[in-house]
Amino acid sequence: MNPLLVRRTGAEFIGTAFLVMAVVGSGVMASRLSPNDVGLQLLQNSLVTGAALVALILALQPVSASFNPIVTLVERFIGVIDTRTAALLVAAQIVGGLVGTVAANLMFGLAPATFSTHERSGPGPWLAEVIATAGLLVIVFGTIRSGRPDRVAFAVGSYITAAYWFTSSTSFANPSVTIARTLTDTFSGIAPASAPGFVAAQLVGGALGLVLVRFLYPQTTDVSPADAAADRKVLS
Amino acid sequence: MNPLLVRRTGAEFIGTAFLVMAVVGSGVMASRLSPNDVGLQLLQNSLVTGAALVALILALQPVSASFNPIVTLVERFIGVIDTRTAALLVAAQIVGGLVGTVAANLMFGLAPATFSTHERSGPGPWLAEVIATAGLLVIVFGTIRSGRPDRVAFAVGSYITAAYWFTSSTSFANPSVTIARTLTDTFSGIAPASAPGFVAAQLVGGALGLVLVRFLYPQTTDVSPADAAADRKVLS
Amino acid sequence: MNPLLVRRTGAEFIGTAFLVMAVVGSGVMASRLSPNDVGLQLLQNSLVTGAALVALILALQPVSASFNPIVTLVERFIGVIDTRTAALLVAAQIVGGLVGTVAANLMFGLAPATFSTHERSGPGPWLAEVIATAGLLVIVFGTIRSGRPDRVAFAVGSYITAAYWFTSSTSFANPSVTIARTLTDTFSGIAPASAPGFVAAQLVGGALGLVLVRFLYPQTTDVSPADAAADRKVLS
Amino acid sequence: MNPLLVRRTGAEFIGTAFLVMAVVGSGVMASRLSPNDVGLQLLQNSLVTGAALVALILALQPVSASFNPIVTLVERFIGVIDTRTAALLVAAQIVGGLVGTVAANLMFGLAPATFSTHERSGPGPWLAEVIATAGLLVIVFGTIRSGRPDRVAFAVGSYITAAYWFTSSTSFANPSVTIARTLTDTFSGIAPASAPGFVAAQLVGGALGLVLVRFLYPQTTDVSPADAAADRKVLS
Repeated sequence: MNPLLVRRTGAEFIGTAFLVMAVVGSGVMASRLSPNDVGLQLLQNSLVTGAALVALILALQPVSASFNPIVTLVERFIGVIDTRTAALLVAAQIVGGLVGTVAANLMFGLAPATFSTHERSGPGPWLAEVIATAGLLVIVFGTIRSGRPDRVAFAVGSYITAAYWFTSSTSFANPSVTIARTLTDTFSGIAPASAPGFVAAQLVGGALGLVLVRFLYPQTTDVSPADAAADRKVLS
Repeated sequence: MNPLLVRRTGAEFIGTAFLVMAVVGSGVMASRLSPNDVGLQLLQNSLVTGAALVALILALQPVSASFNPIVTLVERFIGVIDTRTAALLVAAQIVGGLVGTVAANLMFGLAPATFSTHERSGPGPWLAEVIATAGLLVIVFGTIRSGRPDRVAFAVGSYITAAYWFTSSTSFANPSVTIARTLTDTFSGIAPASAPGFVAAQLVGGALGLVLVRFLYPQTTDVSPADAAADRKVLS
Repeated sequence: MNPLLVRRTGAEFIGTAFLVMAVVGSGVMASRLSPNDVGLQLLQNSLVTGAALVALILALQPVSASFNPIVTLVERFIGVIDTRTAALLVAAQIVGGLVGTVAANLMFGLAPATFSTHERSGPGPWLAEVIATAGLLVIVFGTIRSGRPDRVAFAVGSYITAAYWFTSSTSFANPSVTIARTLTDTFSGIAPASAPGFVAAQLVGGALGLVLVRFLYPQTTDVSPADAAADRKVLS
Repeated sequence: MNPLLVRRTGAEFIGTAFLVMAVVGSGVMASRLSPNDVGLQLLQNSLVTGAALVALILALQPVSASFNPIVTLVERFIGVIDTRTAALLVAAQIVGGLVGTVAANLMFGLAPATFSTHERSGPGPWLAEVIATAGLLVIVFGTIRSGRPDRVAFAVGSYITAAYWFTSSTSFANPSVTIARTLTDTFSGIAPASAPGFVAAQLVGGALGLVLVRFLYPQTTDVSPADAAADRKVLS
């Protein structure tokens, strides 16, 4: 395995672990400290998740900062990465997410892993996951294809903070995060039985999002030469 | 219709739909989860709307990201776009907004559309809509004409979050969003009978804002050549 | 009066009016909607003030965006502007602030102007105003002198949101805003008898801040040629 | 001592003082104004800390803006600064932090310094400090090494706001801030007996973070020539 691919895999592992720690950990803290207002808990949880994404994408993007199998699959589909790379990145995202849940549970004095009992299903939340995921792809690839890859961090962080609130599912929009959240019986958990429905909806949303991206930005190589050169220098 | 105009119309449709989803959906979520504090609900609603605007403008701006007939009318007035384009964009904004309301209602298990019973009228709110809309135009066109089109997303997102609070009308400042919000009987709804007063005040505010913009930035073509070239490349 | 000076004076008037509207208006909205938690009110008030500053500075900075006589006095002292310009800008800031208070009061159905009965004085708040103002100057001129004038909006908006909380005076740090806030008997008001003490402390803080800025950034002309050229183009 | 080193030492002193004022002061304000919801207090405290970091780093970074002995030690270890410089900066950070606590206490009418009685210890919080500090280094040096030193302010501010919530220790991640917080018996205080455990965990986290940074970004000189030149100009 070439060194860059090792680093990319590592970046997806580290980034997804911290992202899931942010989601799960802030959920535990919020429900402990603000027990009387679930909306305040969600405000805390959503602001923290968005802020963590801003920081992680700014720091890791030139190596790899998808943290999301749907994004990686789309990158494979449009030919930005090859199949082996995609498989490694997705594996790193899933394992990283699980490690993130365990770390969050341990920091807060909980058992390393407990299945969530929080059922999340039904037409409303499934529709919400389709919309949330399609919107995420428009935001990610729209920002990149409009020649602003350096602002993906702000776009994604803002979008996810918002999508927690405007979707009835609180916008998981990410299969590796969904899987990781089955292992904590806390605020942000999802019952294992509910996970397949969410992941299926995310895949449908991914396909819809890809259609929207291609409609809005037909060209696949809009990154400015200056940005590409800068990234090559960092990664060489 | 040339391909770029199709994409522009699509971007206004998609962007306004997501914007209205953010406004309406987060209003429903907020009133359900924080039932005991209306101010906390408005905080959630306003932060989500601002964050959604940051993400949507960053992702869609090089194609089209006004999401607001007042902005489009001003662009027509100052000659940036022609009449046919303006008409198509406004139509896309209105239809997109309505689709956004329906999508939000459905995600939260409500009927697709119900007329709002939330009356909003009187001299205070009308004055507020005039001020909110004039201020929005100063922010949008001031940021563009000062050669910072890449920061419109942050300026508009910040302004709208603030204007929710400093105007007694919670700053609709947008006819297509106003129309869309008549179809949800939830936190962010507006009774159909109140909509004409708000839209009229927005038009007055639009005229006032245009005067302020022309006073502050008399030149109409301040965008730097580099930005214009970058946008041309993306749109070509 | 040359056209640029007219525009500058107008920008200070418009910007300070909107800034004070944001401070006063969001204070009224916050105390009405969240009557049971003063801390939540201050959170709403502080986030709105910071967000308004981000938007206003991004939009108006190439013309003029100090909104604060202390900043203008420092600019006069270090020779960036002449005495007549400084006098006009300060006058515009004071009048703009008063108009902002009246507009906020009217939007919320209050009398146009009522003297505040909110006394704010004592060694703690006065020390706080000294520190808040000195810190503001370090942030404003530090960001400019380090060659980042395009990020003053984010630095100042973030600083003021924070300073509302870490100073016991809630960080007025601005004589024109202090004067304007004497005319509203609402959340953000200050009794006229308390204003002189605050302004005096702000002047002391201004002197201290100037010393700190000169220590940290001895050079007076650190703006990059590119930024200066861009600003000249916009202002020509 | 050469003038630049004096300025650097001064910047670390001023910056750390304001950072600790923000942490301690906002904690006092939050617990006084929102006495009934500890989660709301932490939200206020964490947003203020992050916002203060954005402002301080934007304004002081070209001179010196670590405010954290762990970051300075890593910079010494990788050879960016020499031993004498590192010792001076760390001393300035520690003294600055103590001055910040005293200033905050005085502004709020408290005794200048009182030992905190807030015990913070145990495997959960220690693990949390290790993770929080390692993550901070990934964010700081990842953002720098990916050629985005101008965005460290946003990355660090966002990260710290998030880390307050996703770590059970509320993420001190900074020895000078930890020491400073022993001298206030308020919301953000830490009992002197608990400080050594926290600092030890931060050192472990620092070592872990350095390993992660070297894995992700093996090169030590990724700053673009343009950025380096800009900084040299400001500092010359």
